[in-house]
Amino acid sequence: MSLLVVGSVAFDSVETPFGKAEEVLGGSATYFSTSASYFTEVKLVAVVGDDFPEEHVDFLKSREIDVKGLQRSSGKTFRWKGRYDFDLNQAHTLDTQLNVFASFKPQIPEEYKDAEYVFLANIDPVLQLEVLKQVRKPKFVACDTMNFWIEGKPDELKETLKYVDLLTINEGEARELAKEPNLVLAAKKILSYGPKTLIVKRGEYGSLMFSDSGIFSAPAYPLESVFDPTGAGDSFAGGFMGYLSNIGNISDGSIRQAIIFGSVMASFNVEDFSLNGMKDLNYKEIEERFKEFKRLTHFEDL
Amino acid sequence: MSLLVVGSVAFDSVETPFGKAEEVLGGSATYFSTSASYFTEVKLVAVVGDDFPEEHVDFLKSREIDVKGLQRSSGKTFRWKGRYDFDLNQAHTLDTQLNVFASFKPQIPEEYKDAEYVFLANIDPVLQLEVLKQVRKPKFVACDTMNFWIEGKPDELKETLKYVDLLTINEGEARELAKEPNLVLAAKKILSYGPKTLIVKRGEYGSLMFSDSGIFSAPAYPLESVFDPTGAGDSFAGGFMGYLSNIGNISDGSIRQAIIFGSVMASFNVEDFSLNGMKDLNYKEIEERFKEFKRLTHFEDL
Repeated sequence: MSLLVVGSVAFDSVETPFGKAEEVLGGSATYFSTSASYFTEVKLVAVVGDDFPEEHVDFLKSREIDVKGLQRSSGKTFRWKGRYDFDLNQAHTLDTQLNVFASFKPQIPEEYKDAEYVFLANIDPVLQLEVLKQVRKPKFVACDTMNFWIEGKPDELKETLKYVDLLTINEGEARELAKEPNLVLAAKKILSYGPKTLIVKRGEYGSLMFSDSGIFSAPAYPLESVFDPTGAGDSFAGGFMGYLSNIGNISDGSIRQAIIFGSVMASFNVEDFSLNGMKDLNYKEIEERFKEFKRLTHFEDL
Repeated sequence: MSLLVVGSVAFDSVETPFGKAEEVLGGSATYFSTSASYFTEVKLVAVVGDDFPEEHVDFLKSREIDVKGLQRSSGKTFRWKGRYDFDLNQAHTLDTQLNVFASFKPQIPEEYKDAEYVFLANIDPVLQLEVLKQVRKPKFVACDTMNFWIEGKPDELKETLKYVDLLTINEGEARELAKEPNLVLAAKKILSYGPKTLIVKRGEYGSLMFSDSGIFSAPAYPLESVFDPTGAGDSFAGGFMGYLSNIGNISDGSIRQAIIFGSVMASFNVEDFSLNGMKDLNYKEIEERFKEFKRLTHFEDL
């Protein structure tokens, strides 16, 4: 099945306690589509400026990502600068330059409009809804958001949530969106806004999925070297949606496996800067780490 | 098999965002032995003052806990006063009065000395080692500790660790003990101090077990109302050691199940103040929650 993603393509400058990277390839749609490309065919919608080098486009093409929807506008590409301290769960934004992203109006190419799986990466909820209106009959729509929109456009965000099947969000943002400190109660409240499934991302503590079928808890992979957490959430979403799109069903069992594949991809991603941890994998390595997640969590029932 | 615990019996005064409790029954050995009493016969060694009411002793007896080792000294019982804010993972100690605990010299009754399973709750590592010298031939020794001893008696603690099979410790304390921010590397270092198994407690994020057999990740039970986290770690240890002592084997598979039983008992404990969440359970409820942990973590392998 086909998977459509709308989000950002950016240059990131990142400092962590373990090193730094300047103006490297980043952006939610980049991380998402690279991750998902190991599972399915991805159609990318985003915007870059005239400073965006062809080699990055070539990289996306090398992952067989469809870049017909990658608009090029005159101006500079979106830039994000951030720092992580030893608490790698917390990004400190140092600078954001929206550039061509400020006037981004996602145009879905005609041949993308039959996409069955759709991921609305973390962009203005008004744009997310405009994208959805252009897609004909999606089977499964997931979206991401962040505190910036929760605080700045709460009504627009809640309107968008009426039309999505799944929301993926950080733990603190889930509490903020629901205005409820207890996570289980916050999840119930968020599910009442529209999504049938909620995935709460908890960084190095893994994730929790809430739905009518119950709760599923997935750990993060315990790594000896976490180098750069930038893009972990989008890599997670890419593995998750890529797997679902590939198998073409959204049962509770499939969603649980998809969460593990998402966790696998996030674990590869954080082992290096930019896309480096994730760009040269093969499917066998991905499956091997999936099996390690099984060993990591397995215990015999009574 | 028989299970021996040495630790504190105390009066706790606790404030949380959800209420407060004054001078209620607490202490590491109390939480541990109440929790373990659902699985096995527990022998308790601790000290109380002459202000300790007989009704609390009667409660311990009602749980079939052997209290021959509960010394009574003239003076007041150990008192702890603490507060939790909305971040329930972090206890803020407001006051500690050691009282009779200050001169506690654990005396192991003759009929306790053949105990096969031993839990050294969070007390001075010098006392922990003195207890061990009095036990003849324990099959499995676990101990707990905290930042107070890591900072105050690091050499004595490392000496004790040479003689224990398992250490259970909070996440931040694991990093502090190993002087290593990465948890996986910290765990490796701690295992080199002596214990064959390390359990890192992460509050609402569950626990991680490290050993030669690999890593096991267990979630915490997602609760709609966490009332008071006091005693969660000792309730965890009680369920863990109680189950192991009951089945009498320490294979990797048994240790994984024991960690789930520990997590089950901790989840009951935090639902109310003092021992209230844990004192009136039946084994069927415990098994039922164990099975919920299975549903919470299960996904199909590839």
